[in-house]
Amino acid sequence: MRQKIALAVHGGAGTIVKSTMTAALEEAYKSALKEALQKGHAILKDGGSALDAVEIAVRVLEDCPLYNAGKGAVFTADGRNELDASIMNGKDLSAGAIAEVTNIKNPVSAARAVMEKSGHIFLVGRGAEEFARLYGLETAEPDYFFTEERWMALQRVRDEDPTKTELDHGSGKSTLKKLKEEKFGTVGAVALDVRGNMAAATSTGGMTNKKWGRVGDSSIIGAGTYANDLCAISCTGWGEYFIRLCIAKSVADLMEYKGYTLAKATHEMILKKLPELGGDGGLIAVDKAGNIAMPFSTEGMYRGFVKSNGKVVVDIYRK
Amino acid sequence: MRQKIALAVHGGAGTIVKSTMTAALEEAYKSALKEALQKGHAILKDGGSALDAVEIAVRVLEDCPLYNAGKGAVFTADGRNELDASIMNGKDLSAGAIAEVTNIKNPVSAARAVMEKSGHIFLVGRGAEEFARLYGLETAEPDYFFTEERWMALQRVRDEDPTKTELDHGSGKSTLKKLKEEKFGTVGAVALDVRGNMAAATSTGGMTNKKWGRVGDSSIIGAGTYANDLCAISCTGWGEYFIRLCIAKSVADLMEYKGYTLAKATHEMILKKLPELGGDGGLIAVDKAGNIAMPFSTEGMYRGFVKSNGKVVVDIYRK
Repeated sequence: MRQKIALAVHGGAGTIVKSTMTAALEEAYKSALKEALQKGHAILKDGGSALDAVEIAVRVLEDCPLYNAGKGAVFTADGRNELDASIMNGKDLSAGAIAEVTNIKNPVSAARAVMEKSGHIFLVGRGAEEFARLYGLETAEPDYFFTEERWMALQRVRDEDPTKTELDHGSGKSTLKKLKEEKFGTVGAVALDVRGNMAAATSTGGMTNKKWGRVGDSSIIGAGTYANDLCAISCTGWGEYFIRLCIAKSVADLMEYKGYTLAKATHEMILKKLPELGGDGGLIAVDKAGNIAMPFSTEGMYRGFVKSNGKVVVDIYRK
Repeated sequence: MRQKIALAVHGGAGTIVKSTMTAALEEAYKSALKEALQKGHAILKDGGSALDAVEIAVRVLEDCPLYNAGKGAVFTADGRNELDASIMNGKDLSAGAIAEVTNIKNPVSAARAVMEKSGHIFLVGRGAEEFARLYGLETAEPDYFFTEERWMALQRVRDEDPTKTELDHGSGKSTLKKLKEEKFGTVGAVALDVRGNMAAATSTGGMTNKKWGRVGDSSIIGAGTYANDLCAISCTGWGEYFIRLCIAKSVADLMEYKGYTLAKATHEMILKKLPELGGDGGLIAVDKAGNIAMPFSTEGMYRGFVKSNGKVVVDIYRK
């Protein structure tokens, strides 16, 4: 019997309410998820690696202006797009990540280049951009990342948020309250290939109006992304909470050290430990048997999956 | 009976060989460890928090030019000092971290400010420096961090390493070989206070000749630093391997999910999983009962501890 294959993608979790969505927009969101799943599935079906599948799937979502990663990334407080991404190969625990880059068209591919060519795992800022340039990653002008919708979102946050122009010391809490209401846009993919290997990748533009070179969980191995020989995980949500709980690695550890199933381990982290601490969000995960879990504690999560039979399933809201 | 207190510190693990050390230098290294332990212990003895104790202990080691953190940090490939640090409070899982900062005198205190005042966890580069300036952290001119010994170390690596001036694509492996032979200097502290709370902090200048904005495990919550209600951990070693294994969080998870003791959990990660993957290094850890573990897989690790009785013990080599 042929070994199972599986692929799941997400496009962010958050306050996604059907009443504020048009049918056309919903279709556009779903269409990008489908394309990501189809391209990744084509690779897996042909015997390609989980690593190649998650990279291509995330690239599709990075290229789609609707999602907060690559083109369509949200704006920082000073009106720029700063991109974070990571990728991990469960086969050998190799990993790569970049943060705070502003001119790389597909951050996930830069993360993969870091993994394969830098001798390091995590490169940030101008240094990461220099690395990407030296290794021939495709760059993009700041204009490329601009979308009217994200720019207006920044103006809206600035208008609504009294902390927008100055830093009143100790304003952390009120800022966080606002941020919590924002949609968490991040994209990610997890895959299982015919050889039984798994991989995960995550890419994001972070939070609208983020300040001071803030880096969330998406580029942190163990927090937003993890893959080993038991499972592969990509997270989306309020990044600070995912970092504090090391959500992705904790799922793997619950399986390895406590014998939990993928469903139970992901439920424990996203629907118990995360809300208990005050955070929210979701994740996608796959295990060696091809099981997929996609729990989220928010109102919605752009998500989808495809397994060996090739049937693509995508969804947005809570069931 | 009075609740136990405990504090451990490290000043890096690596190829520390007695034959290349003078008695005077050995004494200087030990003297800084003792001062860090004494200052931290004074706080704990007076009922102060584990968080205050680890911050002050790390500050002492940051201020000592012998250790690769704060003053005395190693130089990057382009001759700068880029500093990373993190801190975590096990009491409430709050955490803060900075990376790639060049002008903050005590990076561990900046990490604490991020934790307490930014609403975020991880700030990098110029943004992190701007945050630190706004919140009144003490800055230092690049000259402050300069030490003759570290500068010569950079020249030595440049001379020995054929990859020094240009990037021959795919040179990752040979660079890593060289890096492995370098001493891993990083400082850190873990503490248990009278209320039974634990905290951990880590600070580093990274690797000599590091390129492209490389960030290691020291500023990554879950990799180089972690603290919860079971234990507190600070790591030192070949950072990329600590990231891939999420060493610090894995120790906590082995205790929580598998019921391991602190000694068994730290042994498992540092003396089994880390060398199996090809990495090396060490860590310091404390648990709720005041047990301390300080395993390392290298030839030496600058380390020390003090418990309720106030007796300060420091050591460098393998027993």
